[in-house]
Amino acid sequence: MLLRLRRGLPGTQTDSILALAKELGYRARFLEGSNGLLHLEGTGKPEHRSRFEDCAGVEAILDAGDARERHERLPGQPDTVVAVGDARFGGGQVALIAGPCAVESGERLLEIARAVQAAGAVLLRGGAYKPRTSPYSFQGKGEEGLELLARARAETGLGIVTEVLDPRDVEKVAEVADMLQIGARSMTNTPLLAEVGATGKAVLLKRGFSATVREFLLAAEFLLARGNARVVLCERGVRGFDKTTRNLLDVGAVAHMKLATHLPVIVDPSHAAGRSELVRPLARAGIAAGADGLIVEVHTATSEARSDGAQAISAEVFAAIAKDTAAICAIDRRTLVRPHASPARA
Amino acid sequence: MLLRLRRGLPGTQTDSILALAKELGYRARFLEGSNGLLHLEGTGKPEHRSRFEDCAGVEAILDAGDARERHERLPGQPDTVVAVGDARFGGGQVALIAGPCAVESGERLLEIARAVQAAGAVLLRGGAYKPRTSPYSFQGKGEEGLELLARARAETGLGIVTEVLDPRDVEKVAEVADMLQIGARSMTNTPLLAEVGATGKAVLLKRGFSATVREFLLAAEFLLARGNARVVLCERGVRGFDKTTRNLLDVGAVAHMKLATHLPVIVDPSHAAGRSELVRPLARAGIAAGADGLIVEVHTATSEARSDGAQAISAEVFAAIAKDTAAICAIDRRTLVRPHASPARA
Amino acid sequence: MLLRLRRGLPGTQTDSILALAKELGYRARFLEGSNGLLHLEGTGKPEHRSRFEDCAGVEAILDAGDARERHERLPGQPDTVVAVGDARFGGGQVALIAGPCAVESGERLLEIARAVQAAGAVLLRGGAYKPRTSPYSFQGKGEEGLELLARARAETGLGIVTEVLDPRDVEKVAEVADMLQIGARSMTNTPLLAEVGATGKAVLLKRGFSATVREFLLAAEFLLARGNARVVLCERGVRGFDKTTRNLLDVGAVAHMKLATHLPVIVDPSHAAGRSELVRPLARAGIAAGADGLIVEVHTATSEARSDGAQAISAEVFAAIAKDTAAICAIDRRTLVRPHASPARA
Amino acid sequence: MLLRLRRGLPGTQTDSILALAKELGYRARFLEGSNGLLHLEGTGKPEHRSRFEDCAGVEAILDAGDARERHERLPGQPDTVVAVGDARFGGGQVALIAGPCAVESGERLLEIARAVQAAGAVLLRGGAYKPRTSPYSFQGKGEEGLELLARARAETGLGIVTEVLDPRDVEKVAEVADMLQIGARSMTNTPLLAEVGATGKAVLLKRGFSATVREFLLAAEFLLARGNARVVLCERGVRGFDKTTRNLLDVGAVAHMKLATHLPVIVDPSHAAGRSELVRPLARAGIAAGADGLIVEVHTATSEARSDGAQAISAEVFAAIAKDTAAICAIDRRTLVRPHASPARA
Repeated sequence: MLLRLRRGLPGTQTDSILALAKELGYRARFLEGSNGLLHLEGTGKPEHRSRFEDCAGVEAILDAGDARERHERLPGQPDTVVAVGDARFGGGQVALIAGPCAVESGERLLEIARAVQAAGAVLLRGGAYKPRTSPYSFQGKGEEGLELLARARAETGLGIVTEVLDPRDVEKVAEVADMLQIGARSMTNTPLLAEVGATGKAVLLKRGFSATVREFLLAAEFLLARGNARVVLCERGVRGFDKTTRNLLDVGAVAHMKLATHLPVIVDPSHAAGRSELVRPLARAGIAAGADGLIVEVHTATSEARSDGAQAISAEVFAAIAKDTAAICAIDRRTLVRPHASPARA
Repeated sequence: MLLRLRRGLPGTQTDSILALAKELGYRARFLEGSNGLLHLEGTGKPEHRSRFEDCAGVEAILDAGDARERHERLPGQPDTVVAVGDARFGGGQVALIAGPCAVESGERLLEIARAVQAAGAVLLRGGAYKPRTSPYSFQGKGEEGLELLARARAETGLGIVTEVLDPRDVEKVAEVADMLQIGARSMTNTPLLAEVGATGKAVLLKRGFSATVREFLLAAEFLLARGNARVVLCERGVRGFDKTTRNLLDVGAVAHMKLATHLPVIVDPSHAAGRSELVRPLARAGIAAGADGLIVEVHTATSEARSDGAQAISAEVFAAIAKDTAAICAIDRRTLVRPHASPARA
Repeated sequence: MLLRLRRGLPGTQTDSILALAKELGYRARFLEGSNGLLHLEGTGKPEHRSRFEDCAGVEAILDAGDARERHERLPGQPDTVVAVGDARFGGGQVALIAGPCAVESGERLLEIARAVQAAGAVLLRGGAYKPRTSPYSFQGKGEEGLELLARARAETGLGIVTEVLDPRDVEKVAEVADMLQIGARSMTNTPLLAEVGATGKAVLLKRGFSATVREFLLAAEFLLARGNARVVLCERGVRGFDKTTRNLLDVGAVAHMKLATHLPVIVDPSHAAGRSELVRPLARAGIAAGADGLIVEVHTATSEARSDGAQAISAEVFAAIAKDTAAICAIDRRTLVRPHASPARA
Repeated sequence: MLLRLRRGLPGTQTDSILALAKELGYRARFLEGSNGLLHLEGTGKPEHRSRFEDCAGVEAILDAGDARERHERLPGQPDTVVAVGDARFGGGQVALIAGPCAVESGERLLEIARAVQAAGAVLLRGGAYKPRTSPYSFQGKGEEGLELLARARAETGLGIVTEVLDPRDVEKVAEVADMLQIGARSMTNTPLLAEVGATGKAVLLKRGFSATVREFLLAAEFLLARGNARVVLCERGVRGFDKTTRNLLDVGAVAHMKLATHLPVIVDPSHAAGRSELVRPLARAGIAAGADGLIVEVHTATSEARSDGAQAISAEVFAAIAKDTAAICAIDRRTLVRPHASPARA
């Protein structure tokens, strides 16, 4: 490991860093002629990096050496494939999640579920608990929404992806969900991450509004450290300086993460776009950049959507996205996972 | 209220917006020659704005008219003054909060508490539950930390400001804290906001890493809507593109909020700076921009701090900040609230 | 047009705005019950918008009405197709520009030119004048570089794309270049825009590091207002808060601009990525988002590149990008323009 | 110096880096157990850093060692004091520049000049050449504006600060200006920097919209490398994600630069604020953070300002700012430089 110490550090601070290094089993040596570069020889562990990052006198970890974290892809390590119902994310398999922003009524949900399944979705999304910016906005239907989701699964056979906001709701939501979504606003909610990690359920972890890739991967590390390896990362656009689009879809982060971690990475073009007419090009861009799937907001009557309606697309546009996805996947021999026949239809 | 509808809206969407306007008691009229500008005449309410924002066909609320929210300052409305122990925030009164990042040991905490009290702090900060980026970092001492804080208050008479991360901990933390801190990572944690709002305790609400001023004020609105008006806003720097400083202290937002809301606004120069040598100039800048107080990380042995040590300042530097603050306040006849003698000393 | 005036405007300011509106031929009327919304009826012109934007009392132009600018796409208006040598940008035609960051030597340039031509490029890029961050960095070979570019064109038949930095060099560079590049650092250099606009040469205009889409389109408007309509816009990544990638490739802006303007839009994946291993996925993402072409840094001996070597890709990777591009174009019936046989080979 | 090489570098790239190190007189050695950390021993020069930064295989310069650049403050090095007319920037001396955004008419300019001089300004700002976002906006009065500025100086004795946009205008503008301003849009215009550097005139260099502190200091280095050491840096707010203020005034960068460079640093609160009611608090914040001066837009009839009127303040508010500045300077024994009697009055 290589540490850069702060300039003009008092001797007591330097001593406490050297003592920590020794305690963790490293041999420490300052580089000649450098401004406080401390080289540690020895076998690193994931948690050591954070121990040094916590030290007052350490300005930066320039090289983490062996102190690898669980999300890191070792050279040659294959993708982790996360299976949820019929869906497979990673290892050249691409899957589509679609559905309304919020669960509104049973009929509407079922109508949308059938439409997205027919078009190519293998998982149904829909929020029962909605994180909102204003206390006066619609906050979701709660437990009633969960029941409607359970019914939609029974009718269609689609696995359910739904968000959980409150650690006290995890158990209840996990009874219905096949995949627990942790939203962008909750990426830093460590009590929630811990509770969700403990369920062992597949997790869809969204990147925070302005989370760096490292912070995003460390949020995943909270889940992995709890023993839950079924984590799918979701790039949903980051906050930018220009309001032309709602968020900036960070396709470079997608490409980087496909190299840096073994976890699957999907893209949410709906939240990145903020406007329905931009969803399809962003979906294409995400898949072309290497994403292992998409999560898309679809509504069969967009004018009546009670939340984020501006970005919901119709089932027809979603079908076009599914077709685009299959075609782009074919270019580099990836496979779009197809929905099975639904039990209701069988 | 004035709404801009999206271009090329189907008639059914327009109809559903007009129906909603009627339902809420407005007369609606399109402006001649405009591209979908809909003018609503009638008496607005805070929650109406969000209802329209949720409509798919509404691109933007150009003018909110009477639909004022609880945090908004009406013309001529005086500052809300929030009192916590000896501290007063707002109405020309400025108060200082100081202490370690995390509670580490009873002696250390007491040593720091006495030092900051002697230098001019009226409230003691210290984290028992620490939100961290990595699962391997020190996460705080939890309940043991709360006990140490309670003892420090008993010994010094300083009110306690401490963070709560988990809605399940609110009751427990509220027993010890005089002011509950909601950290930057939790600003969007609406279950936590609701739980904290319900306690009626004074709240220190930090701005999220990349929250707009509007989002920040709406997070405060979650507390206000629960009937808790004892909210102090804290600007702690936003995320920027340049890593020269850890965050960008948004003094413009401080100045703007002093006009736009009646709630007090304080500044956290420690998290904005990220480096101890920048804390004092940023503290001065915050007060000069109009802040009603500061929250500063102080440690009597910065080299041993177990969290965020790089930004902790010594008690001597804190004393200089207190002196600066008093001098800057004097320029426009504001008052720095002084600590009373502690019960232990009395 | 609809203007929002600032609150609490003195009567003299309001009067001067009303006078201006009258002078420009509008009927002005305040909306009832609004906070200073001024509605102007009449026929707008492109320059009116800026006139009002310059007024102290005007907070925002909420709706520009008829005051359309030259870059805007009217409903149903087809793409402007820009032809440069064999290249065609727009109208479903996609073309590739490739070459070294900087011109280094005649042989190397020719070697690269032949390699990219064989792989599918129709235009050769290469900098003779390099904009650099440090005065101590290599600033390009200047006139010698122009001569080498002229020779490469003679040998290969590839049209030349090269940057001009200084208005005093425009004439000289235009003698050699088929397309003048205005770099990201020069997007706001209005004397340079004016000089380049006057040549009538095709222009490759790059988006500034943190230019909004509107600022970018207004920079193009400087060229269009000079009578030069041969403008190709280039998205090259904007500055973000995370240094994982050098820049954030704004694929949403690409998708938006394909709707909002009739001008062609291409993508520079090399500067967005900053690392060679990310260039190919970003190139794919750009084309999938709707870009009309790519400009890519290619070097046949990347280790010897004297500028931006970290992002240069090999001719083999470029050939793969050309293949990807053709395949993605085929999905929605666009065409990748192929290079003709070179004169040297004929 | 310490370099981090890219992972998986081919041997030829490593060899070319080692050869360059040898050529520049360094002994190079890889750190044991590291991922490509190359330590160079030897005496660095300013230009070496850029040579290595240009290498394809070098990912980062982790430590620049002795390769100090001209703007860097050595330990213990005092401030460079820049004198312009009566103004002094640096070394505990603080000076105020004020005037209209653009020169409009002779009488108006003189009226404003007298008003700001009476209030405490020692230099007069005013644009004859205006950089604008739209080609349809007012671009300044050009040479006529220069003549009006010359007359205002003759009448008041105030030194003139005015912007130059085009390298071809430098000579002409330098005849009138006491201090040449390089605007935010021109910070990266290296031909302009070179031309201005060669005049030997004092330079006011504004930070680019999204320039990092390092890029800003390297733009200054272009001037210093030309032998012109009379450079005053100006922080004017950087681009942020929130449109509540026009720009984010980076007071942390001001505090950092006061430590990192010996050059004076001033603040432009007008462009940072974008709204007149925020100018005074931002001016106070800038001075409190350590700035050596201010440049403020003042207009005696703000409703008639033809450019950026929304942010212009009255002479009365400017007088209050001057008073605030003197009071804040007094806190740490800095001095506000006072205007001499004007020749016209003498």
